[in-house]
Amino acid sequence: MPRPFLPTPPTPSASRRSEAKAATREKILAAARDLFLKEGFEAISMRRIAHAIRYTPAAIYGHFKDKTELLITLGDQDFEFFRSKFHAIQAITDPVDRLRAAGHAYIDFALEHPRHYQLMFMTKWPIIDPAQSSLEHGNADEDSYAFLDSVVIDCIKAGRFSAKYRDHRMVTQACWGVVHGVVALYITHGDDPWCEFTRPRDTALLLLDASIDGMLPPPLAPRPAPTRRRKAARKP
Amino acid sequence: MPRPFLPTPPTPSASRRSEAKAATREKILAAARDLFLKEGFEAISMRRIAHAIRYTPAAIYGHFKDKTELLITLGDQDFEFFRSKFHAIQAITDPVDRLRAAGHAYIDFALEHPRHYQLMFMTKWPIIDPAQSSLEHGNADEDSYAFLDSVVIDCIKAGRFSAKYRDHRMVTQACWGVVHGVVALYITHGDDPWCEFTRPRDTALLLLDASIDGMLPPPLAPRPAPTRRRKAARKP
Repeated sequence: MPRPFLPTPPTPSASRRSEAKAATREKILAAARDLFLKEGFEAISMRRIAHAIRYTPAAIYGHFKDKTELLITLGDQDFEFFRSKFHAIQAITDPVDRLRAAGHAYIDFALEHPRHYQLMFMTKWPIIDPAQSSLEHGNADEDSYAFLDSVVIDCIKAGRFSAKYRDHRMVTQACWGVVHGVVALYITHGDDPWCEFTRPRDTALLLLDASIDGMLPPPLAPRPAPTRRRKAARKP
Repeated sequence: MPRPFLPTPPTPSASRRSEAKAATREKILAAARDLFLKEGFEAISMRRIAHAIRYTPAAIYGHFKDKTELLITLGDQDFEFFRSKFHAIQAITDPVDRLRAAGHAYIDFALEHPRHYQLMFMTKWPIIDPAQSSLEHGNADEDSYAFLDSVVIDCIKAGRFSAKYRDHRMVTQACWGVVHGVVALYITHGDDPWCEFTRPRDTALLLLDASIDGMLPPPLAPRPAPTRRRKAARKP
């Protein structure tokens, strides 16, 4: 018997379908991140990722044409998220203050998202041509490395670093190294009883300060007292 | 027919046997290092190590009673080798010079032995009780971490660091971080076209200098000129 008052089931709207599709992509990417982290890029196939989330391999291929496309999407997503952490500090006028703030933001990202961090910065990636990324290589608004480089260039142009620290490529890589060091060691050795790692954020910030201060010219020192001419040592 | 002048075959002497045994151990450890690096500690079994060098699993168990013993031996061997790189600098009298030299030695070790380095410092190890190691935990002559800590303590005791840098635990971990950062990034990202890594040794040494200089007290600054008392701003 027909039940005239039963509402007809809603047909999924286009927006609902696209939401569901996005949710599936996220699920695939999250599973891929976990597996890549655990076993490395090489060891993990599309089939393994599908299996982890109980999908058929065909269902995954509907979202990513191959493992490389999946990997590029994962990288772009994570690096875009990472780049967004620096939006708030772009307005800082003093370039050295901006550099310090960028260091803070980097350290916080690493400690708040250690799994993302590990895959992004502590794992050897297959070589990917930057042209394949959806982020524009070299554009400081999208490319975090270019952003850091631009802050370093601003410090150098403003004459804020001593003479030794004026090769922006080297200084940019040094600045990256300084924020990477402590957090990376903490991620791998944080629970190693051999070296009781404590307060990684404080330690990383302390080191950031030391390194930036060490690149600034020393405050004007008093003129050294005139030295007396030393007598030539007499030969015995 | 007997051939009386044929020399009797030499019976392997005890020293030869022990040499052969040591060579086998080395072969097992080298294969284990490669496999652990490639696939992680968890994924690799004694059977897999045996298979990689075409031994029977039983032959390996003649050298190491289990994977944990093999892992501890590998770690002890690598960390003893690493510690030996600091012997030459122990005699440096000035503690800050000793700290710089330790940094140099660390950077050189990482760049000359990147595979050892990666397994030692860029891989999460299973938790091992330091008491199981053949190296004495906390003894600066055997434990490289304790050695670095002792150099930092010497710098602090000699009053060489400014007030902010007098917590030896934090400063030791910061100093470790400063030498780790650039070399670790170079090992993972050295061939990444996104960030053209060049001259990692120069960059790491530049950063080491900046960080150590940043921990030293600034040279005596001239007394600031007396400031004039500012007039109170008049309210409009």
